[in-house]
Amino acid sequence: MNAVVSDRVVAAAASLSAVQDFYFNSRYAERRGDPALCDFTFGNPQEFPLPGLVQALQKHSVPLSESWYAYKTNEAEPRAFLADSLTRELDLGFEPDDIAMTPGAFGAIALAFRLLLSAGDEVLIPLPGWFCYGSMLSAEGVAAVQVPLTPGTFDLDLAAIDAAIGPRTRMVVVNSPHNPTGRIYPRAQLEALAELLERASARINRRIFLLSDEPYRRIRFDGIAFVSPAAVYPWTLIDYSYGKVLLAPGQRIGYLALSPLMPLADRKALREAFFAAQCSLGWSFASALMQHAVPDLENLAIDIAGLTRRRDRMVGAMSRWGYDFVRPEGTFYLFGRVPGGDDERFFNALADRDVFVMPGSVLQTPQYFRLCLTASDDMVERALPAFEAAAAQLTPA
Amino acid sequence: MNAVVSDRVVAAAASLSAVQDFYFNSRYAERRGDPALCDFTFGNPQEFPLPGLVQALQKHSVPLSESWYAYKTNEAEPRAFLADSLTRELDLGFEPDDIAMTPGAFGAIALAFRLLLSAGDEVLIPLPGWFCYGSMLSAEGVAAVQVPLTPGTFDLDLAAIDAAIGPRTRMVVVNSPHNPTGRIYPRAQLEALAELLERASARINRRIFLLSDEPYRRIRFDGIAFVSPAAVYPWTLIDYSYGKVLLAPGQRIGYLALSPLMPLADRKALREAFFAAQCSLGWSFASALMQHAVPDLENLAIDIAGLTRRRDRMVGAMSRWGYDFVRPEGTFYLFGRVPGGDDERFFNALADRDVFVMPGSVLQTPQYFRLCLTASDDMVERALPAFEAAAAQLTPA
Repeated sequence: MNAVVSDRVVAAAASLSAVQDFYFNSRYAERRGDPALCDFTFGNPQEFPLPGLVQALQKHSVPLSESWYAYKTNEAEPRAFLADSLTRELDLGFEPDDIAMTPGAFGAIALAFRLLLSAGDEVLIPLPGWFCYGSMLSAEGVAAVQVPLTPGTFDLDLAAIDAAIGPRTRMVVVNSPHNPTGRIYPRAQLEALAELLERASARINRRIFLLSDEPYRRIRFDGIAFVSPAAVYPWTLIDYSYGKVLLAPGQRIGYLALSPLMPLADRKALREAFFAAQCSLGWSFASALMQHAVPDLENLAIDIAGLTRRRDRMVGAMSRWGYDFVRPEGTFYLFGRVPGGDDERFFNALADRDVFVMPGSVLQTPQYFRLCLTASDDMVERALPAFEAAAAQLTPA
Repeated sequence: MNAVVSDRVVAAAASLSAVQDFYFNSRYAERRGDPALCDFTFGNPQEFPLPGLVQALQKHSVPLSESWYAYKTNEAEPRAFLADSLTRELDLGFEPDDIAMTPGAFGAIALAFRLLLSAGDEVLIPLPGWFCYGSMLSAEGVAAVQVPLTPGTFDLDLAAIDAAIGPRTRMVVVNSPHNPTGRIYPRAQLEALAELLERASARINRRIFLLSDEPYRRIRFDGIAFVSPAAVYPWTLIDYSYGKVLLAPGQRIGYLALSPLMPLADRKALREAFFAAQCSLGWSFASALMQHAVPDLENLAIDIAGLTRRRDRMVGAMSRWGYDFVRPEGTFYLFGRVPGGDDERFFNALADRDVFVMPGSVLQTPQYFRLCLTASDDMVERALPAFEAAAAQLTPA
């Protein structure tokens, strides 16, 4: 990239290069979309969309007013609906004005970053973790500080978080259920984090905000409970996307919601800033159609029982061949140790057999790999022999 | 707004305050949506959407593959279609890789700004002009330098542009057809600008890029020709939206296209940066549905004859009452001098009669007002007596 491109995009591209190369320039990129593949890479659908999604789009395409497709900002109807729905789901009294309607969680995260961060600030992000926080922060001139999760359990490492907080810290990102490990942090752990952030904010004399990145909130296994950090730390912003639970990440609908526990003065300042911040990101409001459709999307979900079945099938079979997984409590990912320890060799051993996983190096954990359970049952069965063979090939006898 | 909100959003909000106050906190805001209103303010529909738009959304909601709603970036099919279509429309050989699929022109402008501008850069924008360039630039730490158009004709004022270019200048925004005046710049004027920019780039030893903001490109009156700056200045990026020609600004589909005249090395640098830049803006790619629908949207348009009829009706009638308009060659706006010269009094005199226009102060030209011709014929007829009365009330006898 020569000097044509801005500094900020050069920085964003550097942070994004591993996932960009994997998506556009890898053996996977060459084969993507080939029906012969067993594709366990990204959180993409491998089967046809939910009929309820298609029905909702068809229904809400039909205009009920002259202004159906007029400019939309954060519209009153979806905000009121969501405030009510979130109040019941999270047992917290959300107000409509505290919700911004965004094109997916990605848009909500960009909005949270823009609302709160100035150049030179620092944000703590989890390692391993989602591969786009860093690039979004770099582009804003903000430093991403990767804080390792507790080795083995992938719990929040409170001591590591406390040690990483410095005078420029402005935000901590918490992702629960966690991509890629599937870990859901229990209330006690979040309460300890809240106490830590309260103490640290006093110490640095600057309020530390918490971004709760919870797009997998409704994808949980075995009846495990979910607690949002918004319920335990007042300075929390929630980002949410329908892209995961509907498995329709290309259709872009989500929101940013301020914790109702946040002091009203701070909430008012953020509310009033929504419009300018969303405008400055390129009119980052959810589309008319998706805002109209929210009430019909709210109770749709992919087949969680199917995800559970595939999780259990894969963990069960592959553990016998020496694979070592973190047993996920939520999300649609499996995160495991690479047999033999070299994620590149492992990726290639599987690719030779038409099976594609995400190498851990894309998530900056090269000794691991990530599998996406949005694969079909058939794909799982076709792929298992390849996983068995790759383990045998790469593990010393 | 207290210190909770980031510096960049404070700056964006300051730049946007006139339009934000008008939209959310004015007499207009109180009445917006009331069917008794004659609403000539924003470029919004006052009648039901185009049936072709609704049909396209319904048709393309139906999935034709498992990946119909999977993650979308700049997808191959709409890019190939648009490269072909743009090549014919603008008589320039566009390549698919030079087109980024964005959520409207707003997203394309944000993308162009992010791709090319670093903090401390300067961008020349027209005065009068669209009210959001400045806020988007402020948020990126870039200075917007307002350059007045030629008084009276609203042509490009080449001497003023040349004088405004300094060592930090990185981009000039050209908006043709021009909002709010409806002016379309002829080829000779653009060629003179291209020569100027070539000389100025050499002088400051830095390439000046041109952003051609042309969402009104297909909304032209009286068979007047359109020439894109992309045809005369190689370092041009075009932003386009379907939101104007379909009068569906809430549905978010547009693109950024690099001039095929731009040297390949520069185009390649920008192409390669699209992904990181769009990602960093919050996954600023057009939604799956809108990318699928592009071929069916391409030849749809609102009733240009109707706009022409309303332009002629209003200019004709109102000129008799002393109104002084720039006769628009394109867009769906009428830009005129306020009778009596006080846009606030004029706005209120009309609002008292249920007629709402955009005061010129929102466009930083307080002695003018803007009318949007997307009003219905019936609305025009209902409103004309109010315009007559307001002129009589405010103009000294």
